[in-house]
Amino acid sequence: MKLDIAIIGTGNVAWHLSSALENAGHVITEVYGRDLKNAEKISSRLYGTEAQDHLDFTESQANLFILAVSDQAIGEIAEAVILPEGSVLVHTSGNMALDILSFSSADYTGILYPLQSFTKGREIGFEEVPFLLEAMESKAMKTLKTLCKSLSSPYYVVPSRDRKAIHVAAVFASNFTNHLIGIAESILERQGLEFDMLKPLVTEQINKTLQMGAKAAQTGPAKREDFGTLENHHEFLHYNEQLAEIYRLISQDIIDSNPL
Amino acid sequence: MKLDIAIIGTGNVAWHLSSALENAGHVITEVYGRDLKNAEKISSRLYGTEAQDHLDFTESQANLFILAVSDQAIGEIAEAVILPEGSVLVHTSGNMALDILSFSSADYTGILYPLQSFTKGREIGFEEVPFLLEAMESKAMKTLKTLCKSLSSPYYVVPSRDRKAIHVAAVFASNFTNHLIGIAESILERQGLEFDMLKPLVTEQINKTLQMGAKAAQTGPAKREDFGTLENHHEFLHYNEQLAEIYRLISQDIIDSNPL
Repeated sequence: MKLDIAIIGTGNVAWHLSSALENAGHVITEVYGRDLKNAEKISSRLYGTEAQDHLDFTESQANLFILAVSDQAIGEIAEAVILPEGSVLVHTSGNMALDILSFSSADYTGILYPLQSFTKGREIGFEEVPFLLEAMESKAMKTLKTLCKSLSSPYYVVPSRDRKAIHVAAVFASNFTNHLIGIAESILERQGLEFDMLKPLVTEQINKTLQMGAKAAQTGPAKREDFGTLENHHEFLHYNEQLAEIYRLISQDIIDSNPL
Repeated sequence: MKLDIAIIGTGNVAWHLSSALENAGHVITEVYGRDLKNAEKISSRLYGTEAQDHLDFTESQANLFILAVSDQAIGEIAEAVILPEGSVLVHTSGNMALDILSFSSADYTGILYPLQSFTKGREIGFEEVPFLLEAMESKAMKTLKTLCKSLSSPYYVVPSRDRKAIHVAAVFASNFTNHLIGIAESILERQGLEFDMLKPLVTEQINKTLQMGAKAAQTGPAKREDFGTLENHHEFLHYNEQLAEIYRLISQDIIDSNPL
């Protein structure tokens, strides 16, 4: 089923989603940006899409409005946007509840949260983008499922409380793992060493973790309760107390996870 | 150049290295295990390799002896092993200095530390196993380089101090990232949710991190200094104070890494 979709926002999610939806056979009718130039950067890559810098959509053909803006802006824009009758309005945030859309003029509301990290200029297949869905009414849910199926994206219907848990888990599994690899980079850099030598280890570790589960894949001095090495490493990190404390705390948590 | 090699130890490194070295055209003359049965498990997979449970190698044809045992056992075994004249003895530890081998009967000593995580039953190509090399004498270093080249393994000649830095970095990039993914698993499990939904995110994040570097690939609430979400997530984790503290500390370190 072809949908007519307006995209509100010009960030990474708006950028990737608009192209993917068009490729999947839908029509992107409008792209809204507070700054018209940013909206035009997206609309110019699409067919027959208008860029606009006002929130009056009364003339729009769209039946689905995707609000892909920062968490802070969602409430304000949802209140300001003027939608045609019968519209479905959804936001794409992992963190905001559904009722933030309740003051909007939309007849139906929902959430379409892509559980993926988008970067401008970096292509990603949407079959690798799981969506978390939530909706008050079955009409909105049906529209969201149609959208996910057309993108070949896996989807999960989850209430706001679960979505928050998933968002916290995603911060650990993605943002924090990235930062720990960044710490490893900085340790090597300080010694004048190339990070490249660690890449095969990281790749193999993550493959193993995802295949076996983290519990079975855990190795290292904390897992072995090799207190000599732990002490040794902790001392090595004396030049940055915060790093030393991160080392100590995660090691302690690994030890606490060991079977007695 | 074909080497005659004896393997001392029966753990994961001994297991993977012995097969790979034989496949690369070398001869594994003996495998030593304190428990003969464990040595036989390895020798039975090789051609003409003897299993032995004593440390007298005076009759051995080997010119290279690889000590692949736990850090705690290296010193003791190095002192006890009886080697033929002209032998090169190396250990495979990331953490122990070269001089732990100085009381051995070897004429030449060195370190052959594989910067990779081995798991029994999980095959890995040795072109994905970088080795860190160290040796007192050029003869031992030449032997180690020959070995690495025959395995198509990348290698780096690094002094003990750098090897320690690399080991600490590896703990962050591999052991700790695994544990953080484990924390994510536990958060979802507690909510009765499947970890599978997070796998595409982890895969894409790590690919991005390794390609762009962690600094450029950092995203999330701490990077955005979105204190509302940070507070919110911290509260969510109230059921486990240690988790909440890990969340707080890594987030703080990401914020501290932000450009002013």
